[in-house]
Amino acid sequence: MVIEGILTTENPDGSMHVAPIGPHVNAELTVWVLMPFQSSTTFTNLRASSRAVFHVVDDPLLMACAVLGLCNRVDELQDNATLGTLGKEPISELTAAHYDAATGWVLSLSCRTIALSVSHWELSDPRAIAECAMTKHRHCRPFWGWNRARHSILELAIVASRVHMLERREIDEEVSRHKIIIEKTAGARELVAWELLRKHLSQ
Amino acid sequence: MVIEGILTTENPDGSMHVAPIGPHVNAELTVWVLMPFQSSTTFTNLRASSRAVFHVVDDPLLMACAVLGLCNRVDELQDNATLGTLGKEPISELTAAHYDAATGWVLSLSCRTIALSVSHWELSDPRAIAECAMTKHRHCRPFWGWNRARHSILELAIVASRVHMLERREIDEEVSRHKIIIEKTAGARELVAWELLRKHLSQ
Repeated sequence: MVIEGILTTENPDGSMHVAPIGPHVNAELTVWVLMPFQSSTTFTNLRASSRAVFHVVDDPLLMACAVLGLCNRVDELQDNATLGTLGKEPISELTAAHYDAATGWVLSLSCRTIALSVSHWELSDPRAIAECAMTKHRHCRPFWGWNRARHSILELAIVASRVHMLERREIDEEVSRHKIIIEKTAGARELVAWELLRKHLSQ
Repeated sequence: MVIEGILTTENPDGSMHVAPIGPHVNAELTVWVLMPFQSSTTFTNLRASSRAVFHVVDDPLLMACAVLGLCNRVDELQDNATLGTLGKEPISELTAAHYDAATGWVLSLSCRTIALSVSHWELSDPRAIAECAMTKHRHCRPFWGWNRARHSILELAIVASRVHMLERREIDEEVSRHKIIIEKTAGARELVAWELLRKHLSQ
């Protein structure tokens, strides 16, 4: 099955790289298979260090910013007019992270973090296959709960990551369908995530 | 905003009643508004005892069984051929609960439980409005993580609860759309939940 979350890796200069990812796992979370494109920064960093931190998240804004690459460009994150409506603290929370030498980069907003170490590479395809072992596991925050708007934000984040493979009509249909759910069930963070993704998807 | 989960109330004979519910809350979960139909068992039980337990859940099978009323008919749950493929233990887990005199009925499979007490009723509409205060809060299990198939099961559970208000064409469209996501991202529990809902929605 597939778990959707956020992966941090270490750039060559030691800084943090943040990317959304959907690893194949078993229900017990003892089997982990990542499939980064060989053209991606995640792949380059993983090849160099053989480790990454997977974050179980329930925050729609973190996912939206990760997909739009904003978590890797802190200046842009802080200058973003849509995010600005939330105030300063929620924005700095989005990239709040600490580096732990034994683990790697850990995002503060996650529900739990799972440190992974690559045990086997398969490189014959443009989409590499990295079999991983879990080396550490830590609970951070309780799950808020199921919210349909958050699920719609996740779906639109996936649309945003595949925008080059989709037709305009398909994108517009997804946006219209999720708009109804978001308007019915969202809170403030979901509405800001929606605004970020809607702007990106209308381009 | 709306949180989707499961509510337990006490029947007049002291037994447990289980129902899916989507209360209106604030992000901090300090404000709770339930809107049960005055014709529902949840309403009758809530009026009698003025209390209920909301369960934050991440289990698709529990949600599917709650929507189909199976959690209130334990014999049917155990005799269900689709659920039977999982084995006995996962089925008894679904209704595993304990009664705590200070709280009410607590389902073991939940991520966290929130005991609610009604502070104000508004009864002018067929859909009653019950403003509630949180009286207790307990963490039980960590969140597994975002899984698109689980979110599709939640959407189909909502379709199942509104089936009398929808046209055949609308139901079939939702089923077809979510089928693709479920086949791509589900594990064993999600596939059983899907089979239960698919059968119900094809009737």
